[in-house]
Amino acid sequence: MSGMGDVLENVAIDVWARVFSRSPRQVNAPHESDAELIEVPGASESYLAVTIDTVAEEVLAGLYRDARTIGWVAAMASLSDLAAVGADPLGLVISASVPPGTEPEFSGRAARGMEDACRSVGVFVLGGDLNSAPAFSLTGCALGLVPRNAVLTRRGVRPGDTVLLTGPAGSGNALGLVRLAGLSEELFAEAEYRPSARLSAGGILRGRAHACMDTSDGVLTTLDQLMRLNGCGFEIGCAWERVLARDVLALCASTGTPPWMMLAGPHGEFELAFAAAPGDAEAIEGDLRRAGLAPVRLGTARERETLTLALPDGRRTDVDMAQARNLLETSGGDMRNYLSRFRELGKSWGIE
Amino acid sequence: MSGMGDVLENVAIDVWARVFSRSPRQVNAPHESDAELIEVPGASESYLAVTIDTVAEEVLAGLYRDARTIGWVAAMASLSDLAAVGADPLGLVISASVPPGTEPEFSGRAARGMEDACRSVGVFVLGGDLNSAPAFSLTGCALGLVPRNAVLTRRGVRPGDTVLLTGPAGSGNALGLVRLAGLSEELFAEAEYRPSARLSAGGILRGRAHACMDTSDGVLTTLDQLMRLNGCGFEIGCAWERVLARDVLALCASTGTPPWMMLAGPHGEFELAFAAAPGDAEAIEGDLRRAGLAPVRLGTARERETLTLALPDGRRTDVDMAQARNLLETSGGDMRNYLSRFRELGKSWGIE
Repeated sequence: MSGMGDVLENVAIDVWARVFSRSPRQVNAPHESDAELIEVPGASESYLAVTIDTVAEEVLAGLYRDARTIGWVAAMASLSDLAAVGADPLGLVISASVPPGTEPEFSGRAARGMEDACRSVGVFVLGGDLNSAPAFSLTGCALGLVPRNAVLTRRGVRPGDTVLLTGPAGSGNALGLVRLAGLSEELFAEAEYRPSARLSAGGILRGRAHACMDTSDGVLTTLDQLMRLNGCGFEIGCAWERVLARDVLALCASTGTPPWMMLAGPHGEFELAFAAAPGDAEAIEGDLRRAGLAPVRLGTARERETLTLALPDGRRTDVDMAQARNLLETSGGDMRNYLSRFRELGKSWGIE
Repeated sequence: MSGMGDVLENVAIDVWARVFSRSPRQVNAPHESDAELIEVPGASESYLAVTIDTVAEEVLAGLYRDARTIGWVAAMASLSDLAAVGADPLGLVISASVPPGTEPEFSGRAARGMEDACRSVGVFVLGGDLNSAPAFSLTGCALGLVPRNAVLTRRGVRPGDTVLLTGPAGSGNALGLVRLAGLSEELFAEAEYRPSARLSAGGILRGRAHACMDTSDGVLTTLDQLMRLNGCGFEIGCAWERVLARDVLALCASTGTPPWMMLAGPHGEFELAFAAAPGDAEAIEGDLRRAGLAPVRLGTARERETLTLALPDGRRTDVDMAQARNLLETSGGDMRNYLSRFRELGKSWGIE
């Protein structure tokens, strides 16, 4: 069995989480949902959903060079967590950490990135905090409401469930590859990376999908975490041309990058990965399409707790995502080293 | 008239705030209240109060050396904003930015500081985000509910109002002085600095006080901001032995520090400064005392828009807090220089 403790990030979170006592008003346990769900006195129909997300590492690693991207992602990251629990958003508060001497123009662009992201999904920034720090970072905290009779968390996957995405993925890792390998932005531009929180999808999935989690840490990391939480495994088809977004496929083709890396890397986007009873999947897909989305079938949940890729040539291979997820911590911050060890991982799984 | 734009911090905030469009559900305007107040569908009796606060600068400046202090203050800072709008807390989410290689013991102490702060006022940490950054910082985002018929903001001060604090102040600037002047902690220990969010006071003040703001940026900064927002001034008595906490007075006495600096400095604590009709002040003070607090009368609001100190020798002096508030930005980060320029400011006001 694969435990939560095999993944260093889960262990680091537990250093904090184990200190805190649990609110009697809280519905979810740690790790169990993308947003915290709490009972609010006087609001008997709904739970309040709240989630917080800081964009710092992506700025430091040079992944985002345009302040507008930082603002966009900082807003969308927490709105995406609301989407994954099926919440209707109430708004967003932000905290901006700005190094002394930063041009007001830079801060203004970051603010406009947040505003654009929020307005594109009908949400408002309510207020925030501004402070001085050695590195630029933005924190978003999003609030929403979810009907008590339609709670959607990461738990509830059943063997036999169909596993889907709300749309083609891979754009986060595409930008990651361009930066880590020092490629030209002509191959994949930062401005193309404007992933959207799937709030309307969350409304469609609540009460119908068995479990849901966003792909902010990459598709395979998401499935790995769902596997560890639910104690069941997934068999995933590798029809890259459907699962990966078109511009991501083009990047893979032009650079000779194996497509699996665009799913296995740690920099994701904001699609929702969800599991639903096979009999419900088709109706859900129809509703998602009517909402303007392009859902993708990934595969099937099953009892054996492994993450198995069904390769185009008919072979099946189990991938140990704990190795991939711990690689950032274990490769000592050298990004070229990280990238080459990542490719070797694929060879060891037999999928290079 | 003293505008909001005279203070560099207000200008910096507006670089962000002017970009964001306003939610039709939001009750307060920018700068108007310590927490954002929003209408929640299905909760017709209450507004949701939400506020976010990052503790970063105090860590960088070496003000806090014990992770427990960082955690304590990060939790209390946003809970104090809830107190200042009279909200009943629902909980707190946090974002921790931790440099690579930080000892788990350090993170654990910060977490325990947060937990201790929360439990001391009956609040729970609901969840959060963990990320890697060059400097340690903690962000808290607190949620609460406030009755719609008892909204408390920073606006509403009327000339003639009595101005009070929920308790003696100055401990934040006492710790600041110890650090900036390189004094021994025997004079004022970091562990003594455990200011508490005045949540019970907020419940007493709502619907009765005309305006309220916490002293997190120091008492005189708070009054200065209330002056700019309300377009009226304050005459403040200088009975230091009542206004300053006992250990702060002792620090002043043993180091020859003029007591006004403990009110004028920018590092505050979490008392509430509030204005109430003279006829209501006594009843409010009684209720605060019954809640275990030791309220202090500061002075009176009046039409003329200046901040005037009534000195013990009978003289009156107008202090321009914009100069003091901008000093951190204008003294180029040299803390000794900052401290000596601060003392000179007092001389120019005739209060050294």
